[in-house]
Amino acid sequence: MQSRDIYLKRRPVGMPVPEDFEAVVTTLPALAEGEVQVRNSWMAVDPAMRGRMNDAKSYIPPFALDAPMEGPAVGTVVASRDPGFAPGDIVSSRLGWREAFNAPASALRLRPDVGLPPQAWLGFAGVTGLTAYAGLLKVAALKPGDVVFVSGAAGGVGSIVCQIAKIKGHKVIAAAGGARKIAYLKDVLGVDAVIDYKAEENLTKALARAVKAIGATGIDVYFDNVGGEHLQAALALANPFARFAICGMISQYNVTEAPTVPRNLTLIMVKSIRMEGFIALNQMEMEPHFLADMIAWHKAGLLTATETVHEGIDHALDAFFGLFSGANLGRMLVKLG
Amino acid sequence: MQSRDIYLKRRPVGMPVPEDFEAVVTTLPALAEGEVQVRNSWMAVDPAMRGRMNDAKSYIPPFALDAPMEGPAVGTVVASRDPGFAPGDIVSSRLGWREAFNAPASALRLRPDVGLPPQAWLGFAGVTGLTAYAGLLKVAALKPGDVVFVSGAAGGVGSIVCQIAKIKGHKVIAAAGGARKIAYLKDVLGVDAVIDYKAEENLTKALARAVKAIGATGIDVYFDNVGGEHLQAALALANPFARFAICGMISQYNVTEAPTVPRNLTLIMVKSIRMEGFIALNQMEMEPHFLADMIAWHKAGLLTATETVHEGIDHALDAFFGLFSGANLGRMLVKLG
Repeated sequence: MQSRDIYLKRRPVGMPVPEDFEAVVTTLPALAEGEVQVRNSWMAVDPAMRGRMNDAKSYIPPFALDAPMEGPAVGTVVASRDPGFAPGDIVSSRLGWREAFNAPASALRLRPDVGLPPQAWLGFAGVTGLTAYAGLLKVAALKPGDVVFVSGAAGGVGSIVCQIAKIKGHKVIAAAGGARKIAYLKDVLGVDAVIDYKAEENLTKALARAVKAIGATGIDVYFDNVGGEHLQAALALANPFARFAICGMISQYNVTEAPTVPRNLTLIMVKSIRMEGFIALNQMEMEPHFLADMIAWHKAGLLTATETVHEGIDHALDAFFGLFSGANLGRMLVKLG
Repeated sequence: MQSRDIYLKRRPVGMPVPEDFEAVVTTLPALAEGEVQVRNSWMAVDPAMRGRMNDAKSYIPPFALDAPMEGPAVGTVVASRDPGFAPGDIVSSRLGWREAFNAPASALRLRPDVGLPPQAWLGFAGVTGLTAYAGLLKVAALKPGDVVFVSGAAGGVGSIVCQIAKIKGHKVIAAAGGARKIAYLKDVLGVDAVIDYKAEENLTKALARAVKAIGATGIDVYFDNVGGEHLQAALALANPFARFAICGMISQYNVTEAPTVPRNLTLIMVKSIRMEGFIALNQMEMEPHFLADMIAWHKAGLLTATETVHEGIDHALDAFFGLFSGANLGRMLVKLG
């Protein structure tokens, strides 16, 4: 079997360009003992991949040059030389950016048939969902009555954060860019106030208006996907003892100059704010509760799985680039099979 | 009885100047029922008072104009019309910046005779000590093996943080400005590595050298009294899951332009760092354990009470201004009686 794989050819400076990557056709060798052959049906792209394109130390090693990149994928077992997997099984892996692969069984996770579409394992039932769930409930320690502010609210993680907060009965202020996303947040997700950051001169003033509009004094929880001006606004409008779950700072990833915001970091001290960065991989002990809740909420029709889908591996880079121009509503996926 | 009181006459812009204040002689009226008359023997000044000179919302209201300022003080009861207090009692209050006062009994706290000098209630046995204790043990959640970095380490709070961390067996890196403070940190407090920030071009490089010198890979706890470049260095050298207790940001208090550091805030996310601002007033439930530990450590000779003393209310402003030029070793006190 052949696979088209996307290789990282050189490390981007600032915003990545197509020339930083290359599509390479490989022929899969025969399976070794203990290996499994998988044809990917879906892969996902996310902003954190930008960090792995740099040669910088992080919680996860950088992508190697002249090798396929990695990322979340779900697929179907084609052949197996491991007793744990059989042809037809649905498996998830970190071996995205390729159409098919051979891998040791330990690199795969068998996904049970619980009535979810396969791409749900890349979305609300996968790491994306766990990021939203753990960030909101554990890191930000959501408690009754909290007013929740979410940036990047129409994205893969943000849209799930909004929904969990609404399911649990909270007032939610959601920020995103552009009329289409704002309409989605209001009409589909039913948040209480929206901020179109692309239409605002001053995000702090916009957040102050949103807080006032919902009859609140400030925000208690901030779920940060964006950083920069959004974080500055959140600090300005935070109530005492606010908790900030720092999930991403997409506004900063392609920045090559020194950031100048937030300028009001002393408010952390003045208001006894807690800011905590986290990654879902360190929250795996929550997974049983997370999956139970997500599957129940999905069955109950409370959870909308929002996806922006590109077709074919040749469009995987378009999907990735689109993250930084804000092209995605919900999770950004590439359909491969 | 007469008292000289220090009034705030106008709100400072940037660094306060003597003209922002005025000494006013008042004659205390006769005591009303339920009131107590106190002659202050000591008052303390601290950097947080700068914030209260602004007309800005904070965890504590701003100082009123044309009225005596407030601050920690300890004194002796002269007369009492409340059954809870008798002449000769040692009491602490927030009614500093004055030589004597009448106040309702509820504004006073009776301090027991446990063998401490009276000014200890303004230092290691008072809010200063509780700030160090709660910040290090609860907010930063110090655990065995943690490498501790302290900025403003030779100050009132910082010097106690260093000592608690050393008593509990930790490696401590201490930053302060000038040879006298550095010698004190090494020779008196016995910290493991020192950084004279006034002698360093690049604090991040200096902290990296200090980390290496003690055989560590990074810092696990940062106790921040300074903010700015110190915070940036701490972010750069933080180990994953580091906890930052944000106690003060003295580098930022008189800044009138937008701060440009830290520039590396995305590391909060990359390293799953927790940053938490706090004030001791919200940690009062720790006080019984705090006092027991402090009195025991003091009796055991493990705790050095370091004080910089100015004599007389006429020098109270010198003491306050000295905080911002880094003139104090340990707690900055004014002896009044």
